[in-house]
Amino acid sequence: MSRYRMDLGEVERWVKAKGFRRVLIQAPPGLWPEAVRVSELLKRCGIEVIIHGGSCWGGCDVAYLEAKYLRVDAIIHMGHSRFLERDEIPTYYLECRYMDPEPLRSLLGEARDKLDGYRRIGVGLTVQWLDFLDELLIGLRDLGLEPYVGEPMGVLRYRGQVLGCSYHPLLKLEGIVDCYLVIGSIFHGLGLALQTRKATYAGDPQTQRVVKLEESVRNLLKSRYGRIQEFRRARRIGVLLSVKPGQMRAELAMKVKKLIEEAGKISEIVVVDDVREDYLMDLPYEAFANTACPRLSIEDQERFRKPILLPTEVAVALNRVSWEEVIRTPRYMAMKISL
Amino acid sequence: MSRYRMDLGEVERWVKAKGFRRVLIQAPPGLWPEAVRVSELLKRCGIEVIIHGGSCWGGCDVAYLEAKYLRVDAIIHMGHSRFLERDEIPTYYLECRYMDPEPLRSLLGEARDKLDGYRRIGVGLTVQWLDFLDELLIGLRDLGLEPYVGEPMGVLRYRGQVLGCSYHPLLKLEGIVDCYLVIGSIFHGLGLALQTRKATYAGDPQTQRVVKLEESVRNLLKSRYGRIQEFRRARRIGVLLSVKPGQMRAELAMKVKKLIEEAGKISEIVVVDDVREDYLMDLPYEAFANTACPRLSIEDQERFRKPILLPTEVAVALNRVSWEEVIRTPRYMAMKISL
Repeated sequence: MSRYRMDLGEVERWVKAKGFRRVLIQAPPGLWPEAVRVSELLKRCGIEVIIHGGSCWGGCDVAYLEAKYLRVDAIIHMGHSRFLERDEIPTYYLECRYMDPEPLRSLLGEARDKLDGYRRIGVGLTVQWLDFLDELLIGLRDLGLEPYVGEPMGVLRYRGQVLGCSYHPLLKLEGIVDCYLVIGSIFHGLGLALQTRKATYAGDPQTQRVVKLEESVRNLLKSRYGRIQEFRRARRIGVLLSVKPGQMRAELAMKVKKLIEEAGKISEIVVVDDVREDYLMDLPYEAFANTACPRLSIEDQERFRKPILLPTEVAVALNRVSWEEVIRTPRYMAMKISL
Repeated sequence: MSRYRMDLGEVERWVKAKGFRRVLIQAPPGLWPEAVRVSELLKRCGIEVIIHGGSCWGGCDVAYLEAKYLRVDAIIHMGHSRFLERDEIPTYYLECRYMDPEPLRSLLGEARDKLDGYRRIGVGLTVQWLDFLDELLIGLRDLGLEPYVGEPMGVLRYRGQVLGCSYHPLLKLEGIVDCYLVIGSIFHGLGLALQTRKATYAGDPQTQRVVKLEESVRNLLKSRYGRIQEFRRARRIGVLLSVKPGQMRAELAMKVKKLIEEAGKISEIVVVDDVREDYLMDLPYEAFANTACPRLSIEDQERFRKPILLPTEVAVALNRVSWEEVIRTPRYMAMKISL
C-alpha cells in the first residue's frame, strides 16, 4: 500500500489531452516505487514510458537535458511542487502527499511541551504534509497558540509551504511572530533558522521529534566562518555553475568570478550537474564558490572538505560585507550578491 | 612538469580560426591539471573558458548536453582520440600522449620472459602510448618476435590503437597470431581477452607488469554465468539506456526490452548518465540489461550487486543463444543482439 496521495487521474487526463506518446518519469529514489505505479498506468493507456534513473533533488532538478536528448514529449516530475515557471519540455509536477495524518497529530503533544512560553508562531510545512495544514493550525490553536502561515509566493505554490531553499513568506512574518515551527525535517527547519534571529523549531513527524535549532545554527555558523577563513587563504577558486535548470545562475557565477578576480585570486567557472566529492577534491582549486543549490554549502560541506561558500559568504571572505551583518538574515542564503 | 605531449598550438589555431569565443574544456579527473594549462592558454587569447567538473569516461562521453545548455561555441575534449563521427557542438579531441618512453622500454624485458614460446604477436596500445608504437615493434622484433598491428577502423583512429570497448582490427588478426599483447592496463587487455580464445597478455608500463589474462577471464566468465542465472529468476528488468552520446543505443534498448517482454518478464527503459550503485539498488528492478558502456558489466558488476547483463548475455539468459557459442568471441561484448 502506498503512503502517498497522487492525482493519477489528473496525470492521465493531461497526457491524453495533450496527445503525448512518449513520457519520461522522474522521481527521487525514495519515490521510485510510486513511479512504477505511474508507469503502469500510462503503459495501460498505450503511452511509451521511460524511467529516469538519475538524481532528482528538487523541483529545480527537472531532467530537461535527458528528455530533449531522448526526444520524449513530456516529463512527469514526481514529489515536488512546480518550481520552474516555464517548461522547456511540457512537465507535470506530480506531488506526492502523505495520506496518514497520524504522525503529524501525535507530534502536536511534543510541540506543546517545546513551544511552551511562545504565543505567535510562524508555521511552514513541506509539500508532502500540506494536506494537513488546516488540521495542524486547529491543533496548534487548541494548544492556546496563535499560528501564522505565509501566503504563496514565487516557487512556493501553496499557503504554508516551505522549500529547503525558500522561506520568504515566513520571513516576512518575522516582525509578528515569537518563533517558527517548520514541519518536515531538521533539514527544512535549519534552512529557515539560518536566515532569522527568531527561535526556530523543526518538527519531524517521521521521528516524532520537535527540535530547537539554536545550537545547531550556532555551531554551523562557527564552522562556516572557519571555511571563510580557509577561502581567504586560497589562491585558485572554482565557481560552481549548475546545469540543473532551477540552479543555473550564469550571471551570478560571472559576477562572483569577477569579484574573486578583483581580489587578486585566480578564478574559473566549473560546470557541474550532481556534485561529486571526489571530483571536487581532484579539481585544481583550493576552494569553491557555490552558485548552484545553497544546501550544498550547508549539508554537504563536511563531505567536500574544500570550502564551498555561498555567494554572500564569498562577499564576506573578500571583505565586501561583514559577517555579523548577514548571518541569520535572508541575505545569508540568498543566491545573489548584494554589496 | 607535465608527463604529456599535447598539441596546444593546434588547439589555439583551431579556436582562433573558427572564431570561437566561449569554450568548454572537458577532461577525465586525472587530466584536470592539464586542463588548467589549456585553460590558461585560451584565456591569454581572450577566450572565455568553462571547466567541466563532471565525468569523462571516454571519447563516447562528450559533454554536448552541458555545452548546449551553457551555449558554448566549442568543446575541447581531452585525453581521448576522436570517437564520434559528427559533432553536435564543434569538438576538438585533444589527445594526451606520454612523453617518456622509458616505462615502455623497460617493460620489454618483462615481456620477453612472459612471451617466451610465442612467435607471432598481435599488438595493441592505448592512445597515450601510441607515440612509441614503432619503437615497441622494433623492440619486439629484437626479441625475435613477429609483431602484428591492426589498421585504423571506425573509432580506432590509429594503427595499433585499442580502446576498452573496441579491438576489431586486432580480432581480425586472430587467424594469424599466436597470442596478443595489449599495452595499457589490465583493463585494456581484459576487454580483448574476453573476445578471443588466443592467449592474451596485458602489459602495463606504469606497474611494469606483463600479465597473462587466462585465469582472470575464466573466473570472470564463471561469475558472469552466475549473474545470468540470477537474471533468469528476475521478474522486473530495467534496460539501461545512456544519454552519453557515444553510448546511447536507443534501438538496441527497445530491442532488448522487447526480447525480455517476449520471455514473459516486465521490462522498462531506464535512462542513465553516470550509473550510481545506490540508484541501481533503489530502482525497482531485480536485474538490468546494459546498452550503455559494456565495461559497466565487467568492471562495475561487483559494486552493483544486481545483475547488469550485456546484450548478448541477455540473449543467453533468455535461451536465445548458447553461452559456449558466444564467450571468447567478438559477439560477447558486441553492443548488439544477433540471434
